Amino acid sequence: MREFPYYNTKITGGFWKEKQDLVRNTTIYAVYDRFKEVGRFRAYDFNWEEGMPDQPHFFWDSDTAKMIESIAYLTKLKKSAKLEKMADDLIKKIVSHQDETGYFNIYYMTVDKDPSHRFATRDRHELYCLGHLIEAAIAYDEATGKNALLDFCIRFLDYVEQRFVIEKSAGFQTPGHEEIELALVRLYDYTGNERFLKLASHFVDERGKREEGLTPWSHESYNQSHLPVRMQKTAEGHAVRAMYLYCAMADLALRTGDGELLDACRELYDNILTRRSYVTGSIGQSSCGEAFTVDYDLPNMASYSETCAAIGMMMFSRRMMLFGADRKYADTIERLMYNGFISGLSLSGKAFFYENPLEIMPYFYKRNVSVEHSEHVPATVRKEYFGCSCCPPNITRVIPSIASYLYTEEDGVLYVHQFMKSVSTLEIGGKNYTITQKTAYPENGKVQILVSGGDLKVAVRVPGWCSEYTGGVAENGYTYFDVPDGGTVTMDFPMKSHFIAANPRVLHDAGKCAVMRGPFVYCMEAVDNGTGIRNLKLNTRARLKVVKNAELGVPALLGKGVRPAYTGDALYREYSGETVEQEVLLVPYYAFANRGESEMQVFIDVK
Amino acid sequence: MREFPYYNTKITGGFWKEKQDLVRNTTIYAVYDRFKEVGRFRAYDFNWEEGMPDQPHFFWDSDTAKMIESIAYLTKLKKSAKLEKMADDLIKKIVSHQDETGYFNIYYMTVDKDPSHRFATRDRHELYCLGHLIEAAIAYDEATGKNALLDFCIRFLDYVEQRFVIEKSAGFQTPGHEEIELALVRLYDYTGNERFLKLASHFVDERGKREEGLTPWSHESYNQSHLPVRMQKTAEGHAVRAMYLYCAMADLALRTGDGELLDACRELYDNILTRRSYVTGSIGQSSCGEAFTVDYDLPNMASYSETCAAIGMMMFSRRMMLFGADRKYADTIERLMYNGFISGLSLSGKAFFYENPLEIMPYFYKRNVSVEHSEHVPATVRKEYFGCSCCPPNITRVIPSIASYLYTEEDGVLYVHQFMKSVSTLEIGGKNYTITQKTAYPENGKVQILVSGGDLKVAVRVPGWCSEYTGGVAENGYTYFDVPDGGTVTMDFPMKSHFIAANPRVLHDAGKCAVMRGPFVYCMEAVDNGTGIRNLKLNTRARLKVVKNAELGVPALLGKGVRPAYTGDALYREYSGETVEQEVLLVPYYAFANRGESEMQVFIDVK
Repeated sequence: MREFPYYNTKITGGFWKEKQDLVRNTTIYAVYDRFKEVGRFRAYDFNWEEGMPDQPHFFWDSDTAKMIESIAYLTKLKKSAKLEKMADDLIKKIVSHQDETGYFNIYYMTVDKDPSHRFATRDRHELYCLGHLIEAAIAYDEATGKNALLDFCIRFLDYVEQRFVIEKSAGFQTPGHEEIELALVRLYDYTGNERFLKLASHFVDERGKREEGLTPWSHESYNQSHLPVRMQKTAEGHAVRAMYLYCAMADLALRTGDGELLDACRELYDNILTRRSYVTGSIGQSSCGEAFTVDYDLPNMASYSETCAAIGMMMFSRRMMLFGADRKYADTIERLMYNGFISGLSLSGKAFFYENPLEIMPYFYKRNVSVEHSEHVPATVRKEYFGCSCCPPNITRVIPSIASYLYTEEDGVLYVHQFMKSVSTLEIGGKNYTITQKTAYPENGKVQILVSGGDLKVAVRVPGWCSEYTGGVAENGYTYFDVPDGGTVTMDFPMKSHFIAANPRVLHDAGKCAVMRGPFVYCMEAVDNGTGIRNLKLNTRARLKVVKNAELGVPALLGKGVRPAYTGDALYREYSGETVEQEVLLVPYYAFANRGESEMQVFIDVK
Repeated sequence: MREFPYYNTKITGGFWKEKQDLVRNTTIYAVYDRFKEVGRFRAYDFNWEEGMPDQPHFFWDSDTAKMIESIAYLTKLKKSAKLEKMADDLIKKIVSHQDETGYFNIYYMTVDKDPSHRFATRDRHELYCLGHLIEAAIAYDEATGKNALLDFCIRFLDYVEQRFVIEKSAGFQTPGHEEIELALVRLYDYTGNERFLKLASHFVDERGKREEGLTPWSHESYNQSHLPVRMQKTAEGHAVRAMYLYCAMADLALRTGDGELLDACRELYDNILTRRSYVTGSIGQSSCGEAFTVDYDLPNMASYSETCAAIGMMMFSRRMMLFGADRKYADTIERLMYNGFISGLSLSGKAFFYENPLEIMPYFYKRNVSVEHSEHVPATVRKEYFGCSCCPPNITRVIPSIASYLYTEEDGVLYVHQFMKSVSTLEIGGKNYTITQKTAYPENGKVQILVSGGDLKVAVRVPGWCSEYTGGVAENGYTYFDVPDGGTVTMDFPMKSHFIAANPRVLHDAGKCAVMRGPFVYCMEAVDNGTGIRNLKLNTRARLKVVKNAELGVPALLGKGVRPAYTGDALYREYSGETVEQEVLLVPYYAFANRGESEMQVFIDVK
C-alpha cells in the first residue's frame, strides 16, 4: 500500500478541524511559551554556566525538534509568518552551534563539554534527539523549502556513521532510546539516498545482538535489547522506545522486503493488540520503566498509558496497514485518536496528560502520610508543563498531520480508513482525484465519500466497533465500491452504545464493563455522579441515552445504576443488598478531568 | 477492672490447646533453630568481627528477648528442662557481657563499639530492645524464680535514667520505637518500684513535645512524635510502634488516673476500630512505613497488616477493657485471635507471615519485567525466617499466654470475655474460685461456664458477630448472671454465616462482601475455586453450608457463585452478561496459603 501526505488533505469541519484550530491558535503557543519560560530555547544561546538555573538536559533537543516539526505541519497547511519565525530562530541557533565534527547536543555542548563523553553513554538520548531533528528538518524543508536544518542533520549523520559504523568508536552500538532508525528511513524516502536506509538497517540489525551499556536499574528488555529484533515476539520494555523501534522495523520490512522482520512486526503487533493494550487503545502498563509488563496485566489506576506511546502505536499501526488491508490497524488508530491519544490534551488546548490512566481515585493518592516515600501515582488533572516534556510537542505534531491516517492506495484502489469532513487531492494511477468526505463523524456514523476526477474503486473500512452494520463486509473489514467519476459512496454506521467486557484473564476488570459509543470510550466522573463512584453499579439492561453535555460541549450518555442504600458510619456491617437507583452520566474518556480533580472510572462495576 | 495472669488458666482442649501444643512442640524450636542458623544467638559469644557473616543488628536483642519470654510462658505452664536450658544459656551470655555502665546492645557492643554512639541515634532500637528484655526478665523470673536477667535490666535502667533523665545526655529524648514504656509499667507492677512508673511517664510525656532525630524518609508521625500524646486523636505512623505507645498510655492512665491520657486512648482506639482496621481485625494499611494511612483507606492486596501490629492491637484492646466493660474490646481481641493474628502462623507451626494481606494475586507480582525496581508486594506463602524477624517470636509469646485475655474482674463480678475449653483458678474478693469452661468453641457457639468455690456474679460477652442471640444483653454487650456455688451458666450463640459489607467509604471493597461464621472471617482461594477468582461473584442469596475440609482440617463453607461464561481469547468484547454457576468453597482466613501459592480474596464480588 501507498500512503498520502497529510498536506494533500484539508480538514474542513468537525472534531479534527476543531482540534487543528485549537493547536494552531492555542496549543502550539502554550507549549512554546512554557518551553521558553523554562529555558528550553534560551539554552541555544549557549551561555549556560554551572550554578545557573535551567540546566540543559540531554533530551531537550528532541523537544525543540518536535516543536519545529509541529510548526512545519501547521505552516504547510496554512502559512504563518509568526510560527515560521519561531522555528527559523530556533533552527538558526542550532545550526550555528554545530560542532566542526558535525556533532550537536545541547547537554554535551553546554553542560558536560568533555568531547570524550559524546556517544559514551547509551541512555543519553543523543541519537534519539538527532532522530527528532531529522524528522523536523524534513518536515520543515517540505513545508518551507528551507534546508538549513536538513543540511545540519546530514552533516551530523556523517559523524554518526563515522563513529558507529566506520570507526565503531562509540561507547555503545545502538541507541538506548530508539527514534533515529525511523527518522533515517524517512530521510531515505525524502532524499532517495540509500546510505540512510543502510544506517537505519544497521541500528535495527545490531540491536539485541550483544550486551550494551544499561542503566543500573533496568533489564536488557527495557530498551528492547534482550534479543535480536527478528526474534522478538512480545512487546517489552519502555513503550515509546518499543513503538519507535517497531516503526523502523516495519519501515525497513516494507522497503527491503525482509520477511523475517515483517513476521516479527506482526507478532509484536498482535501481542500488543490482543494482550497488552487498554480499551482506550493506549499502551504501557506500568510506570516502572514506563513499560510493557506481562500479558493481561492491565491495571486501571496504575496504568501508564503515556500519550507518546499512544502516538507511537498510531505510527506503528499506520505502517502495518501498508502490508495489506486489515481493519484492525485502522480500528486501533481510530481507538487511539478518539481516546488514549486525544485524552492527552485538555479541552482548553493548554494542558496535557503524560499518563492517561483508566481510573483516578484522588483519595488514594494521599495515603502515605507518615513517610516521605510514596508510590508513583499519575497526575489527576492535566498540567501545563512537565520536566520531561516529550508529550506536549508530540501532540502538536500529530494533530496537524492527522490526515495522513485517512487514506492509502493499493493497485488503484483507494482505501478509506478514517472519517472526517475533508477534501483531499490524491494522485492515483497517474490521475488527480478529488475525494470529499461529507460527514459529521464521529458525532454520528453517516459518511458520504464523493469521488471526482475519474472512476475509482473505493474500499471503506467498516469500523470494528460497529457490530450493527448490515452491509457486506470483506474479511479484511473493508467494503468495496466501484465509484464512477462524480459518484458518491454513502455509508451509515449505526452508533449504538455498547457495554464492553475485558477478557476474564484481565483480573483488574473482573465484574466490570466499559462503555463505548461509536469510536468513543466513555468514563464516569464523580463530578457528575457523586463521590465514591466505585460504589456505583451500572445497569447493563438499561438503555444509554445520548445527551449533550453543555458544560464540556461533548455528547454524554445517561444510563442507570445503583448504589448501596447504606449511609451509616459502621466500618463493617451485615450485607443487606439494599440499593438506591440513580442516573449515571458518562462522558467521553478524552474529556475527563476538564473540570478539576475528580474520581474517574472507565471500567465500572455492573449489576 | 482487674486482670488475671495467664498461668491461672489451663486450656484443656480445642483450638487454643492445639495451638499451644503446636508452639510447645514445634514453633518454639522452629523459631529457635532459624535464629540459631542465622547467628542470632552466636552473636552473644561476642566474637563477631568485620568481614564475618551474620553481622549483629541493633534489633537482635529484641528477638532474643521475645524468645526468652516465650520460653518463660511455656515453662510456667508446664516445666521443660530443655526449653529452660535454652533460655538460661542465652541469659547467661547476655548478662555476662553487660557493660560496667549497665548498657547492653549487641550491635553497639560488637559492631559499632564507639561508646559515644550509644543512645545517639533515635531510630536504633536500643530502648526498644531493653523493653523486650524487661518483659522477658519479668516473665522468666515469674516462671522460674531466676532473676539474673531482671537484675541486669534494672542495672541497665539505672544507666538509662542517668542518660535520659538526670544528665539528659542522650542524642534524643524518647525512643524511636516504643516498647520500653509498657515494659516499665509492667516492671513497676512486678516490683512495686515507682521509679519505673515515673520513667515510663517520662518517656510517654516527653514524646511529641519537640523535634527529635528522625530517619530522613519519615515524618514526625511515623513514630508518633507529631504531637504530645494527649493531643493525638488519630492513629498515625508505624502501626506496631503506635500500639506499644498506646498500651503504655492506657497503662499509665489506669495507674495514675490521668483522664486526658485515657481520653486520648479512647479516641485513638475508636479511630482505629471505626476507620482504620480490616475485617480481620488487623491494622497497618501501608507497607510504606508499615504504617497507618488515612481513614477508610483499606486496600486488600496492598494491606500491610503486620502480625506484630495485630498483637499490639490485642494488647491495646486488653488494656482498654480495664476501664469498664464494653464488648467492643473483647470483640476486637476475638476478631484478631481467630483471624489477623493467627493467620501469621502456618498450620504446620513452622512458617510465618509478617504481612497478612486480604488479597493475594500472584500474577500481579511479576509485572515489572523490564526494570529492577518493583513495587512492594507481600509474601504469598509463609516463610520460615525473616531478616527482620519480630513476628515469629511475638507469636510464640502470645499463644502460651493467650489465657490472659479470658477474664477480668470488677467489683466482684467475673467478666468472661473469651471462650475456650479451660479450667481457671481465680481469686475474687478473697475467695478462690474454680471456673471451668466446657465448650467446643469456636467450632460451635455452645459454652458452659461452671462456677465452683462460692456464689459469683458472672458477666458473659455476647459476641458482636452474633446478631441471632436472643437472650438479654446489657448495653455494654455483656449478659449478667448470679451463679450459685456449683452452678453453671449455659450460653448458646447461633453460628450462622454472615455476608459482611464494608462502609461505602472504603472504596477498595465497593461491590464486595466478606464472609464470617462465628468469629472466623473466611476467604476464597484459587486452589479450591480455579484461577481467576476475581471473576467469581458470590451469590449472597444462596445458603453457605458448613463442610469439613479434610485437607486443612478446618471447617469450610460451601456457597454458590457465578463466573463469566466467556472463555475466548478476545481482549475486549461486547458484554453479554452470560455466566456459569459454580460452587464456591471458602476456608477460614487464617488457614490461607497452607497449600502453596494461590490467589486469595477476603472481599469477594457479590451478585
